[in-house]
Amino acid sequence: MSTSILDTGIKVVRNVGGFTVGRGSLDHLPQFVEARRTVVGGQSQVVYLIDSYFTKHTELINRLGVRDGDVVQFVDATHEPTTDGIDAITAQIRKQTAGLPATIVGVGGGTTMDTAKAVANLLTNDGAAADYQGWDLVKVPGVHKIAVPTISGTGSEATRTCVMTNTKSGLKLGMNSDYTVFDQMVLDPDLTATVPRNQYFYTGMDAYIHCIEALAGSYRNAVGDAYSRETVKLCQQVFLAEDMMSVQAREQLMVASYLGGCAIATSYVGVVHPFSAGLSVVLGLHHCIANCIALNALAEFYPAEHAEFRLMLEKQKVSLPSGVCANLSDDQYNRLVAATVVHAKPLTNALGENFRDILTDERVIDIFRRM
Amino acid sequence: MSTSILDTGIKVVRNVGGFTVGRGSLDHLPQFVEARRTVVGGQSQVVYLIDSYFTKHTELINRLGVRDGDVVQFVDATHEPTTDGIDAITAQIRKQTAGLPATIVGVGGGTTMDTAKAVANLLTNDGAAADYQGWDLVKVPGVHKIAVPTISGTGSEATRTCVMTNTKSGLKLGMNSDYTVFDQMVLDPDLTATVPRNQYFYTGMDAYIHCIEALAGSYRNAVGDAYSRETVKLCQQVFLAEDMMSVQAREQLMVASYLGGCAIATSYVGVVHPFSAGLSVVLGLHHCIANCIALNALAEFYPAEHAEFRLMLEKQKVSLPSGVCANLSDDQYNRLVAATVVHAKPLTNALGENFRDILTDERVIDIFRRM
Repeated sequence: MSTSILDTGIKVVRNVGGFTVGRGSLDHLPQFVEARRTVVGGQSQVVYLIDSYFTKHTELINRLGVRDGDVVQFVDATHEPTTDGIDAITAQIRKQTAGLPATIVGVGGGTTMDTAKAVANLLTNDGAAADYQGWDLVKVPGVHKIAVPTISGTGSEATRTCVMTNTKSGLKLGMNSDYTVFDQMVLDPDLTATVPRNQYFYTGMDAYIHCIEALAGSYRNAVGDAYSRETVKLCQQVFLAEDMMSVQAREQLMVASYLGGCAIATSYVGVVHPFSAGLSVVLGLHHCIANCIALNALAEFYPAEHAEFRLMLEKQKVSLPSGVCANLSDDQYNRLVAATVVHAKPLTNALGENFRDILTDERVIDIFRRM
Repeated sequence: MSTSILDTGIKVVRNVGGFTVGRGSLDHLPQFVEARRTVVGGQSQVVYLIDSYFTKHTELINRLGVRDGDVVQFVDATHEPTTDGIDAITAQIRKQTAGLPATIVGVGGGTTMDTAKAVANLLTNDGAAADYQGWDLVKVPGVHKIAVPTISGTGSEATRTCVMTNTKSGLKLGMNSDYTVFDQMVLDPDLTATVPRNQYFYTGMDAYIHCIEALAGSYRNAVGDAYSRETVKLCQQVFLAEDMMSVQAREQLMVASYLGGCAIATSYVGVVHPFSAGLSVVLGLHHCIANCIALNALAEFYPAEHAEFRLMLEKQKVSLPSGVCANLSDDQYNRLVAATVVHAKPLTNALGENFRDILTDERVIDIFRRM
């Protein structure tokens, strides 16, 4: 393994096509959509995939520029995407559209945006979602797609993956492909004003946690470091401010989410994400809250960042669930260990190739018990 | 004028399609080029526009993947691009190619990359370069194009413009268009190892100076601020290091140049660039050295940054020309004033709408006299 922070080999990184940023930028969405209709021939349909939260907050929907004949499909974000779920939505959209849509607009958080990315690929590539879990398996470009995030932190708006759990095997793996990257983003901080405070915090910390892990790792490069450093700085400004949900803070967190997503493309995570994955796989916890619970128990690996995280929790008066791994069965603890140590790349990035000398079964279980 | 740092209105920003970063990444260029030949039908020609410096350093050319029938055209970067110069190169390439090339590869600094961008637009848009000086005048997408910077700082690899001086009117203005943005970048720090030290410094400071001006301005947004802040940080790491041309520093400056280019897209410059423009227009100084000379005389507007700049000069043992405006004629001083204060947008950004109350003719001349 290299010791130079710059010698990480070559990566080809695809950027999001473009973006609009600022309060009220959602009002530009209809013109982006109309431009796409013009490109493909005027009368083409548009598909809107929208977080089902907005079935009860319809004022947003009225601003999207939906026309007669367009498809509006709500996405239930209670559970993170599964391959069968993606296939079902794809089939429904195929039924409701004549030919390919001019664009797919994903309005929501990581689950909704990941769904939009996956469906866009499947409309032009034969087969099922599970066929494309992995790296560079998508054969041809998907349908044009636009991200409209309504919560900040996952970086889905910027990344080349869309995470799905395989309904049969349980494998949690995305369609990692240049074709998965959005063509356009609309970053309007007004859209995150109504997010519940705890959820806003947990999701925002996804960007922070990824980047502190990347910066502490041994696989590094100058672009990833730059994005990670700026993401951490923005998160500090947001979560150490008096009000993490001021207009300014919400715009900053939206930018942190985007740049954090850019950082993901050129770096690896560390110890937090593998433990978080264990919590998700064995106990069904959502990714973002699981990250926070994991970091909270990993002070020994990230002492300074852990202290800062505790300060952020306190400053924003956000509470974390505790005792989530108390009184589990031996079988559950063993499954937690297995679901954690399987993540060899990030653990090697953080601890070296012999990470199992450090993360023994006993130590892993001990850490989980503290959560 | 707004006083909120976030209320800058909405901007639609187009990103570079994608990039490769790291030592040796030039070796990936042939595969990018071949991929483009495949997309357009296999036998298509490729155009290489290369800084004429490399006529004497041909080992680079052997690594570009040039095939029989491709066009290799050297660009003389002694002078910055003119509209007539661009038209002449475009005409030459039209003669040497049958149909549109699969891609245009620009290998060099700001002048060469800007030339590649302008020629790519003109091959698909009728008329002459001068017809497209301005904003969003380019009608249809240009030819696919790849940037291979061999010096860092201008940000040309990332921006939506290609600066040209109009041969007839003297107007210095680019083709500002989404179509001007590169499709791909190859960021290989090995390519900047042989740049003369002074030139390396002056050009690198283009990124630094733009971003300190942007951060001191009143027109701001969260994305521009993030890019600018990180660019300044990288420049500090490079130019306050023992050796600004170590492998690590050259990679960091390459990233700073890219992110500084991204920052330009969403921000305005300040007082330095207008004075620098005066030096270029009236005395023919190149953009990057003119920036340095201007900042050196503008301590009263940027005290902290000026002090840091002096420290960088000293640390890297780089010298600046002095007395460049000594003993000019009254007419020349008047032309310097006119060529400076015409830049109302950046000067308003820095000093407010009534900037002429601060920048009186006498004061402007006094500042030039100090250069």
